[in-house]
Amino acid sequence: MLKNDLLLKALRGEPVKRPPVWLMRQAGRYLPEFMTLKNRFDFFTRCQTPELATKITIMPIDQIGPDAAILFSDILVVLQAMQIQVEMKDGSGPWIPNPIRSKTDLENTIIPDINEHLGYVMDAIKMTQLELNNRVPLIGFAGSPWTLLCYAVQGQGSKTFDKAKAFCFSQPAVAHILLQKITDTTILYLKEKVKSGVNAVQIFDSWGGLLSPDDYSIFSWPYIQQIVTALKDEIPVIVFGKGCWFALHEMKNSGAAALGVDWTCSARNARYLSGGQITLQGNFDPSRLLSPIPEITQSVYKMIREFGKDRYIVNLGHGILPNIPVDHAKAFVDAVKSYY
Amino acid sequence: MLKNDLLLKALRGEPVKRPPVWLMRQAGRYLPEFMTLKNRFDFFTRCQTPELATKITIMPIDQIGPDAAILFSDILVVLQAMQIQVEMKDGSGPWIPNPIRSKTDLENTIIPDINEHLGYVMDAIKMTQLELNNRVPLIGFAGSPWTLLCYAVQGQGSKTFDKAKAFCFSQPAVAHILLQKITDTTILYLKEKVKSGVNAVQIFDSWGGLLSPDDYSIFSWPYIQQIVTALKDEIPVIVFGKGCWFALHEMKNSGAAALGVDWTCSARNARYLSGGQITLQGNFDPSRLLSPIPEITQSVYKMIREFGKDRYIVNLGHGILPNIPVDHAKAFVDAVKSYY
Repeated sequence: MLKNDLLLKALRGEPVKRPPVWLMRQAGRYLPEFMTLKNRFDFFTRCQTPELATKITIMPIDQIGPDAAILFSDILVVLQAMQIQVEMKDGSGPWIPNPIRSKTDLENTIIPDINEHLGYVMDAIKMTQLELNNRVPLIGFAGSPWTLLCYAVQGQGSKTFDKAKAFCFSQPAVAHILLQKITDTTILYLKEKVKSGVNAVQIFDSWGGLLSPDDYSIFSWPYIQQIVTALKDEIPVIVFGKGCWFALHEMKNSGAAALGVDWTCSARNARYLSGGQITLQGNFDPSRLLSPIPEITQSVYKMIREFGKDRYIVNLGHGILPNIPVDHAKAFVDAVKSYY
Repeated sequence: MLKNDLLLKALRGEPVKRPPVWLMRQAGRYLPEFMTLKNRFDFFTRCQTPELATKITIMPIDQIGPDAAILFSDILVVLQAMQIQVEMKDGSGPWIPNPIRSKTDLENTIIPDINEHLGYVMDAIKMTQLELNNRVPLIGFAGSPWTLLCYAVQGQGSKTFDKAKAFCFSQPAVAHILLQKITDTTILYLKEKVKSGVNAVQIFDSWGGLLSPDDYSIFSWPYIQQIVTALKDEIPVIVFGKGCWFALHEMKNSGAAALGVDWTCSARNARYLSGGQITLQGNFDPSRLLSPIPEITQSVYKMIREFGKDRYIVNLGHGILPNIPVDHAKAFVDAVKSYY
């Protein structure tokens, strides 16, 4: 039995004394101990070595004390398993040497056997759960099919993902085959994560907000919906679409247990757009963790008052930034814990 | 007298047979003739030589036929005039060798004499108006103070402008002095543009959407409001805040003649959030100009039906991309002209 089940209560919409809190990318580059490991092991070695992934996942639990752990990994491991080569370049981020640009490129991808290609993630989940020893729930995650397509086609990070969009708008039939292949893989992957013991899953649609509402409903949402539908009876699903305020209304009927929002969507707008009943997660501006600690504390109180303590999970509106002092991240978590 | 005053009619909210159309960055890199000039003259030479700025401004009028010209220039010339050195690097964009990071850095900036430091812009306006010969109105523009601060502090383009935000959140008093200095300069600059003969002005808040609504109301909006208030009785002002859907309600009462919206904000949401009465401008996804021409035409018709033909200016939701074929841009304009 979990000693701290605040997150699961919030995901079920049950009343809580205070909302749960965790931080996107909480197991990451703002932690000095993480940086030590980062200097010794490259990115995918850290992902693929269960001992390392476990160690990194646990770090923030010990150091800043959030109410949930999220497995250290990367959304791009799914592309790797599909036989799309992905490298991680220090400073510039992901690099796909042979991006998908045609039907032929697509035919070289596979829907992988999950245990064969992503067994290391399952091992990391089991090891992390042993190490967590029921202190807090463990969240597993995946990228949305649209967001993964962005990387697979663009070949690297981008402000606009113009090549990915050009691909979808000029070869929509090929784009939809790719999206479906990613979706099928993601469903298998998340189901295996559930079997391995995660307590909740989150889908990151990091680049959904680059699409118009019409295009979102063509190229992103239907695939996320398939994933939610396939998972929702087994485990609570959180959907986070950065910049996807315009889709909150559609998302609320999806069967997702909670919806993540970024900091451009006020609590009031988020509650209004999502219909007022579903659990919401977010939405502190990660840059605002650079404010002095007393301001962080007051802003967290204000945020909880605005969202309400129930059906709410305190989080950032995107991943924590590398330059955030650890004591500022801890102050964020502590503010939530001191809320009453 | 203007031969085509559709834009001015739309800005006054008068009924029109069809909405006016122009494209943000229409005088730019998708035009082969522009690329020829680009290879011969560096960026700021093009801005600072009235003959070149005029020639570039006119190019799209002759080639794709929009209902308005917008003076070829750059928002960063205001920083240069304030004695902040700005370079333009091919491929990577703006580069500020000595970014503003402290009160001391700020003290080296000035509120310039506009004719002394930006007289070349005024010359370009007068020359362009002669060349346009009343065919269409000429729009002048400026960056919002927040957006200019982003570059002045970050020192270059960025996805998150994390250093600019860190500066505002950790040294707010210094940030406000800088924002006020940029605002004072911008008001003088735009007033001089009005005297030189532009028919409307647009304020680009390209990075307003990186701020939370609370922070937008602290670091961006009050300064835009000062500019609108100072200009609105002399000339119609268009305010375009990329990603600033959350501020449309506040913007509608500002005295602006029109509000620009990007493609993530549907016509319906934009009309609702802006109160239904003010002229709106936008919001075609620039990447959607990569669709086949018949799709572009149909999408333009759909967009006009959704916004309505009155109190509406057809435009993109951000600047046109370099890889757009000229005939696709022309098809966009032609679709509007064929609307009835």
